[in-house]
Amino acid sequence: MTVLKGLSAFPITPSDADGQVDVAALRRLLARLVAAGVDSIGLLGSTGSYPYLSRAERCRALEAAVDEVGEEIPILVGVGALRTDEAVRLAQDARAVGAAAGLLAPVSYTPLTDDEVFEHFATVARESRLPLCIYDNPSTTHFTFNPVLVGRISHLPGVVAVKSPAPAPQSIAGHLGALRAVVPDGFSLGYSGDWNSVEALLAGADAWYCVAAGLFPETCMAIVEAVQGQRADEARRLNANLQPLWDLFKEFSSLRVMYAAADVLGICSAQPPRPILPLLEPARRKVAETLISMSLR
Amino acid sequence: MTVLKGLSAFPITPSDADGQVDVAALRRLLARLVAAGVDSIGLLGSTGSYPYLSRAERCRALEAAVDEVGEEIPILVGVGALRTDEAVRLAQDARAVGAAAGLLAPVSYTPLTDDEVFEHFATVARESRLPLCIYDNPSTTHFTFNPVLVGRISHLPGVVAVKSPAPAPQSIAGHLGALRAVVPDGFSLGYSGDWNSVEALLAGADAWYCVAAGLFPETCMAIVEAVQGQRADEARRLNANLQPLWDLFKEFSSLRVMYAAADVLGICSAQPPRPILPLLEPARRKVAETLISMSLR
Repeated sequence: MTVLKGLSAFPITPSDADGQVDVAALRRLLARLVAAGVDSIGLLGSTGSYPYLSRAERCRALEAAVDEVGEEIPILVGVGALRTDEAVRLAQDARAVGAAAGLLAPVSYTPLTDDEVFEHFATVARESRLPLCIYDNPSTTHFTFNPVLVGRISHLPGVVAVKSPAPAPQSIAGHLGALRAVVPDGFSLGYSGDWNSVEALLAGADAWYCVAAGLFPETCMAIVEAVQGQRADEARRLNANLQPLWDLFKEFSSLRVMYAAADVLGICSAQPPRPILPLLEPARRKVAETLISMSLR
Repeated sequence: MTVLKGLSAFPITPSDADGQVDVAALRRLLARLVAAGVDSIGLLGSTGSYPYLSRAERCRALEAAVDEVGEEIPILVGVGALRTDEAVRLAQDARAVGAAAGLLAPVSYTPLTDDEVFEHFATVARESRLPLCIYDNPSTTHFTFNPVLVGRISHLPGVVAVKSPAPAPQSIAGHLGALRAVVPDGFSLGYSGDWNSVEALLAGADAWYCVAAGLFPETCMAIVEAVQGQRADEARRLNANLQPLWDLFKEFSSLRVMYAAADVLGICSAQPPRPILPLLEPARRKVAETLISMSLR
């Protein structure tokens, strides 16, 4: 299982005010990713608003994506839910429709213990037989993984990867080393948090789970290709060019920036699901001016 | 609107593994609260697992509660949801079925801004016309209110109360004063976090939103009556008697302890919704031994 390597692009999921997915707009976003030749697509990730969408709409989005993308590019799809039985059903849907793997976050309301998260992963993996990527995203799930727990879960049959928040560059080698020491051979270690992910790739990470690539796949592929071609200076130079975008992400959140960007660039005019509000002026103008000043593709 | 004062008892919502509410067991829990004469009932609070239950099951639980409790004791019901439109529908259901007020938490996945939370409350209050209590519970919602935002929301038509986590005793007077300065006259200020709530009542808070009262209403009513009778020493003595229970809450979480307690005491044998696991040995035995050593009613 080596589908989770290189650039994984995470698009928004355009939907209307009632939570109905705009399949035509989603297909337009996906066509850009296919054209750029990304290594995988992260459908219905956090940027894809998965927890805000019903099971039926998540299924519709995945069906459209499988149809649009075809067999060549694997689709990783968010299957997280608050209840274990709901996550099982979402993972079963994902397998039936043709996802390559499921991205499973320990979504929480009541704070969860390590044993509860372990059993949650064990149940979803066993009942769905969908390959799973551990989705470690404390800023949204409010659960913090430690290497011991990642190690335990990584040895469950069917668990193939982990997506961690990329630490600061000076900490990445230690983070990667701590995980490599506890996971099986061939287990994919990948990172999100676009501004620190290029250093993670340079340090030997397998995958970059990338929000920016959801709209700008060519720009991000050029960085990944520089890393793979062992042109570290070129990768760092290209990443530094994106600093204005990373600054917008840090100021307004990547999800809100990507909705505004898709609108500003005329790709789709969807708004995030309420209570999340679209960026208003002057933030919106700042996003527009920043994007126009950069040559993003 | 003075329904939210004194003791508000928050029972668990017994349900099966598929998330179907055990209405007979819920009625048994509610009958104890009615017999003890609690001032209000907090149905489908965090201890009542509201975010883990479907709209239909939340409606069934409320219908049974209104039928069991009657007109005399007001029912406050959790109407929180991740999406604003879902929270609106839940609040509309609650008003139609006969709840006195809705308890609205800013449930989050994507971290929310103050303006987003304000608009969420404004929309639910406007669209449902259900009186609302602001539910401030950062450990589950991961949103932190500040007095300025509580003040803004408290002036929305239909918002009548706030339920805050009780700070340590040395901070309660300052916390109450900061809120009183920003909310309208007659706005109810109440606290949860059982171990610090008695000091909040003694400092002048209007309500104690109480998990322990969900199973032990007479024990908790005795404390509230001591406060109301200006017998502060007696209230503190009775609260000190409950320290072994507060210690269990801190060690294992109040929700997990209440499920174990209901089972140990033979009231109902429900388990919390997975991924939350029931307490296992030796924690379960510790809960049993502690409860048997106390004279809780």
